[in-house]
Amino acid sequence: MSTPAEQSQALTPAAIRAAHELIKPYIHLTPLLTCATLDKIASTPQTAEALAGTPFEGQTPATPNFRFHFKCENLQRIGAFKARGAHHALLRLIEERGEEEVKKRGVITHSSEYTKLTSNTGNHAQALALAASTLNVPAYIVMPKISTPSKIAGTLSHGAEVVFSGSTSIEREAVVSEIQSKTNAILIPPYDDFNIICGQGTTALELEGQFTEKSKSKKSLDAVITPVGGGGLNAGVATYFSDKSTRVEMIVVGGWGEGKRVEKVSTLTIADGLRTPVGLLNWEVISDKRKVEGVFSVSEEQIKAAMRLVLERMKVVVEPSAVVGLAVCLFDEDFRRRVQEEGGEEGWDVGIVFSGGNTTVEAIGKLFS
Amino acid sequence: MSTPAEQSQALTPAAIRAAHELIKPYIHLTPLLTCATLDKIASTPQTAEALAGTPFEGQTPATPNFRFHFKCENLQRIGAFKARGAHHALLRLIEERGEEEVKKRGVITHSSEYTKLTSNTGNHAQALALAASTLNVPAYIVMPKISTPSKIAGTLSHGAEVVFSGSTSIEREAVVSEIQSKTNAILIPPYDDFNIICGQGTTALELEGQFTEKSKSKKSLDAVITPVGGGGLNAGVATYFSDKSTRVEMIVVGGWGEGKRVEKVSTLTIADGLRTPVGLLNWEVISDKRKVEGVFSVSEEQIKAAMRLVLERMKVVVEPSAVVGLAVCLFDEDFRRRVQEEGGEEGWDVGIVFSGGNTTVEAIGKLFS
Repeated sequence: MSTPAEQSQALTPAAIRAAHELIKPYIHLTPLLTCATLDKIASTPQTAEALAGTPFEGQTPATPNFRFHFKCENLQRIGAFKARGAHHALLRLIEERGEEEVKKRGVITHSSEYTKLTSNTGNHAQALALAASTLNVPAYIVMPKISTPSKIAGTLSHGAEVVFSGSTSIEREAVVSEIQSKTNAILIPPYDDFNIICGQGTTALELEGQFTEKSKSKKSLDAVITPVGGGGLNAGVATYFSDKSTRVEMIVVGGWGEGKRVEKVSTLTIADGLRTPVGLLNWEVISDKRKVEGVFSVSEEQIKAAMRLVLERMKVVVEPSAVVGLAVCLFDEDFRRRVQEEGGEEGWDVGIVFSGGNTTVEAIGKLFS
Repeated sequence: MSTPAEQSQALTPAAIRAAHELIKPYIHLTPLLTCATLDKIASTPQTAEALAGTPFEGQTPATPNFRFHFKCENLQRIGAFKARGAHHALLRLIEERGEEEVKKRGVITHSSEYTKLTSNTGNHAQALALAASTLNVPAYIVMPKISTPSKIAGTLSHGAEVVFSGSTSIEREAVVSEIQSKTNAILIPPYDDFNIICGQGTTALELEGQFTEKSKSKKSLDAVITPVGGGGLNAGVATYFSDKSTRVEMIVVGGWGEGKRVEKVSTLTIADGLRTPVGLLNWEVISDKRKVEGVFSVSEEQIKAAMRLVLERMKVVVEPSAVVGLAVCLFDEDFRRRVQEEGGEEGWDVGIVFSGGNTTVEAIGKLFS
């Protein structure tokens, strides 16, 4: 097997285009939405009071001009971009091993957010269950006993076989091995995988195409921002834009060393979908400054403020992880200053990936109670 | 001045089409969304347990087939269909009295939901403030002193002059008269008005056009469902479809006598936008069985269940009033039986107007805590 560094050589825009051809019939072309109100709010300078107590205290507030283009993967099948990678990985597997073998052996996975399954996690597990059900392949999903009943029901509803385990990674791997030894099921990992990355990268291909169609100009997007958890989405998006002028920025929530991959994420965050160490292959892409320009992080309060704006003003339901990119545009003075200086009067067209919308009314209530 | 019965003669589909020509540049063409998951849920028979304790207890659950088409007026300007009527009424006023007179005198209104202004009310006041600001007309908005700060801020942000009064209708009318005697401002009523009704009716015109374009067939919508508060939306929609095969149904929440207009609505409901007696002119339309076929009502729990489905499955933010039509399709066995019997295997294409989305994360939290 090749090393992550070798594999990353094959991560090219052409690989993303090929992935899109393959998965197109199985996924939604999610809408690219704009919101004049959010553009206006983000293009208004922050007040001196808002900057008090932040690292930007005392600075003159930046005066950026933003035009946002929201890629609504919260409206994707199963409510998250993960439907892309799961379908792509399974379709490639069938291509490589043949339908007969894959249908005989089946596929197996576990949730990437295994340590703390909450309402908005387990997206990969649900995505694979859906893909397997569509393509008539048996699927085994290993979930912790403590999973929420709605998540278990969601996975079962696609006809997958749910197998419970304890909640540590050791217990999980033991259960995965046990099922594999019985069934010979093939593991489809949640994010640290070439085909998963190519699948998630199709988000960028659609985003760019929809922007070009709407704007009717030859101008490119100035930047595209995605959250980073395991890193599959960001690595895919960065791969797609690697030969283009659009900058790719990523937003992390905890777990980002100074240029060094962090192996264990212990930060607690409401953006629980992002509470995952970056995968080895993903790291090869996203730590490459030619591919991903900036790394930003946001506070819990900023995530909540951005989420409130999206729900109340844009009337769209998103999970906390999905709004971290918007939060940076709203609150990070370093980023805002850059948009002011580089974008000037004309401003920047910024693509923001709303990565998912799997939350509940109770979870929303708890966040804002 | 002509009587409501006489005025209602002029409420024709042609009047709605003319209204649409006039307001088109000022309003959003809101999307018509579908949701396979909600179709599937509504097309699944209710369980015997779900019917226990309801008037349908013991009946064999109906087996209807639904295809929903959601007209998203929650994504309209100011977050509700009321932007249509307010713009239409003001544009007609300028046409009739001349720009000079209207700009000199200004316009005045009050919230239709005056008795209990909450987060999702005051939509007409905000809509008129927006229309007046766009057309450079002074606007006076009478609001109760107890209005929520966010609602006041929203109205002020459009440059309207907010005038406070006590919270009863007598106190309100006194303040309106006082301002009118000083300024000669022209009253634009919230719903019981010919031009307001024509404006709200443009919702139906767009809904039908978007359905035809999407479905690429000559089939008409089988039914269109709207909530009824003051009745402007329903009367407008019923007027538009009055020469077509599409049935119009309305959903009321309290305040509906057996074929008799109710003058005072005392029912408390989470769908507070609907807590208004039906206007006199609106009554002429909506009590006409040839125009509005059915009247249904729903319980608070059913509204909450429908709202949860729209937020969690469809990922769209709506206010409680907006989902009462969906609630009927999900829970009312009389309606479901009718769809089963008349629609058969092929089922019904049902247009549902999501009337507004003006709620807050705190209000959502409170509903589901």
